Amino acid sequence: MTTFRPNDLHAYAAALLAAGGYSAAHAARTADVLVWANARGTNSHGVLRIPRYIEMVELGLIDPQATPVVTTQTGAMAVLNAGRAPGASGMMAAMDTAIGIANQLGVGWCSARDITHAGAVGYFALEAAKRGCVGIVMTASGPLMAYHGARVSGLSTNPIAICAPKSDFPLLLDMSTSTVALGKIMHAKDAGTNIPEGWAIDADGRPATDPTQVNTLTPLGGPKGSGLSLMIEVLSSLLVSNPVISTALAGGKGSMNGVAIALKIASFTDPDEFAKQVDALAGSLKALPKAPGTDEILMPGERGFRLSEERNSSGIPIAEGTLKRLAEVGDRFAIPQPAPIETKDRPSTASG
Amino acid sequence: MTTFRPNDLHAYAAALLAAGGYSAAHAARTADVLVWANARGTNSHGVLRIPRYIEMVELGLIDPQATPVVTTQTGAMAVLNAGRAPGASGMMAAMDTAIGIANQLGVGWCSARDITHAGAVGYFALEAAKRGCVGIVMTASGPLMAYHGARVSGLSTNPIAICAPKSDFPLLLDMSTSTVALGKIMHAKDAGTNIPEGWAIDADGRPATDPTQVNTLTPLGGPKGSGLSLMIEVLSSLLVSNPVISTALAGGKGSMNGVAIALKIASFTDPDEFAKQVDALAGSLKALPKAPGTDEILMPGERGFRLSEERNSSGIPIAEGTLKRLAEVGDRFAIPQPAPIETKDRPSTASG
Repeated sequence: MTTFRPNDLHAYAAALLAAGGYSAAHAARTADVLVWANARGTNSHGVLRIPRYIEMVELGLIDPQATPVVTTQTGAMAVLNAGRAPGASGMMAAMDTAIGIANQLGVGWCSARDITHAGAVGYFALEAAKRGCVGIVMTASGPLMAYHGARVSGLSTNPIAICAPKSDFPLLLDMSTSTVALGKIMHAKDAGTNIPEGWAIDADGRPATDPTQVNTLTPLGGPKGSGLSLMIEVLSSLLVSNPVISTALAGGKGSMNGVAIALKIASFTDPDEFAKQVDALAGSLKALPKAPGTDEILMPGERGFRLSEERNSSGIPIAEGTLKRLAEVGDRFAIPQPAPIETKDRPSTASG
Repeated sequence: MTTFRPNDLHAYAAALLAAGGYSAAHAARTADVLVWANARGTNSHGVLRIPRYIEMVELGLIDPQATPVVTTQTGAMAVLNAGRAPGASGMMAAMDTAIGIANQLGVGWCSARDITHAGAVGYFALEAAKRGCVGIVMTASGPLMAYHGARVSGLSTNPIAICAPKSDFPLLLDMSTSTVALGKIMHAKDAGTNIPEGWAIDADGRPATDPTQVNTLTPLGGPKGSGLSLMIEVLSSLLVSNPVISTALAGGKGSMNGVAIALKIASFTDPDEFAKQVDALAGSLKALPKAPGTDEILMPGERGFRLSEERNSSGIPIAEGTLKRLAEVGDRFAIPQPAPIETKDRPSTASG
């Protein structure tokens, strides 16, 4: 791990993306989302994505200059055509649109059609919470998880994020619909360890414990996780007539879609009272008697908010493998890696 | 099991509820929801609830004559005060309101405040699908499941249902946020069998395999299920300033709340095209290679739709224990149990 100042890491990420063809605005927004994830400890959705994003530009899968455009607005719903713009900008435009509608009508729903990989979707739900709303975000992509009862990939791990403000940091749920993220399987493979039965299945559809034998991920709780992922595909993709799963399973080239929903708190209740009630809810759960092995009962997102607060002052550590791959991209465009934070500058609280 | 004609069972259920104080309209609507669940094989949400519903009237927990009233409507959102009306009527009024708004504005959100037990929430989501919408329903009630990391009940098993029409029966996801329903633990207790590790915890917060030692249910997938249940409490209860969980955990008397959301399909896309795409999605998943032990890949709700089609012609079987408890209520009000279907009348496809 090498630790960087957040601003330096952000500038580096944005410079790499801009060199790869991203407009300045798309590069800045994408760097925001990626560095946000690194700061929260969600490295799988951090700057390690940059080489693939740039490759996707080169393959024509991302249009790095496209401007998302609202193509339909009827009452409280809108459809935004993202035109394969960088996913962070597509979903941010969708959430902006949803919040704008919610400010007028209490509730705003914006479907984002033809987005690309958006990063950690909690970022967009959090944006709503910063602006007086409860935010809900879903995205739908191609097969990489089993449908319950099948032995091959049939659905994506389609995530859902829900964020509500409270007096300190918000409640921020950001969950995939699989049992575990693919990254946990990759990690076990790298570490040469087995995985617990239930995380994944092999090519015969039987539980895989050897990570090298994994064929696909299992859905969270079987039919519940695959049912939820399926309905996210319906809500995100079929409502805008851009099916991802049936297209991909027929051998076609899938796209991605997303939904951003905003609920204006002041339309429902007094926002201060709401924040107090969210505080009371969190407080009452955190005070419950703990199960063996639990040091502290945590709210959704709490670990990430704490870690990012710490890292925004002490620096953000990045794995050496990631830095090497970023340096390879940087070398192509003559973009130097920023200077790391010297060890003597780093407070002892910084965690790896 | 004794099998009844659906109309007879419905009339019996409605008569019992009316005798227990329900207005004719509330009795009919509640009987609809209960018999619908029995027909689909979800007996835990069927007519066995009637004795408790009547007891709740007697305890003042259900107001059997209350009329749910829309108290706020701003743009695309509404708040309906159910005033402890029978839950089936409260949530149906909420979904009616949401569909009415969606017909005007594309999306309608109705928060239902102070409902009572609503039965199987898929019923209300299905109503949206029958009327050209995608429907989403959530309800929030008091603690009966662990929050992740706690060893006692902290949250409810708050369900979410999502329904989308297709050319034959709709996709209907109706899932709780616990690993399994409480009914499965009760059944193991009755049967004298152990339960798998992971379904429940004992009073020390350790996995319980002896059903008599169960203290509370586990959330689906740990932090994911408890996070989702928590956010359903925020969306259903805190947005209408009627907190259930923090009130109950502080020793107070909790209420219940719900949300009904409707999305007018024609505002987003061509409804016929949408139905075709939902068909194609289901078809592509049903055709996937099956895992060992899977006879058929099923869509959310498929088993229930098939079973109800069969039972609506061949009759609905009800367990003897349930009939005995219903007869005890019936005896109080001089309401006779309907005549069962004679065995010779029953086609051989009737399942138990």
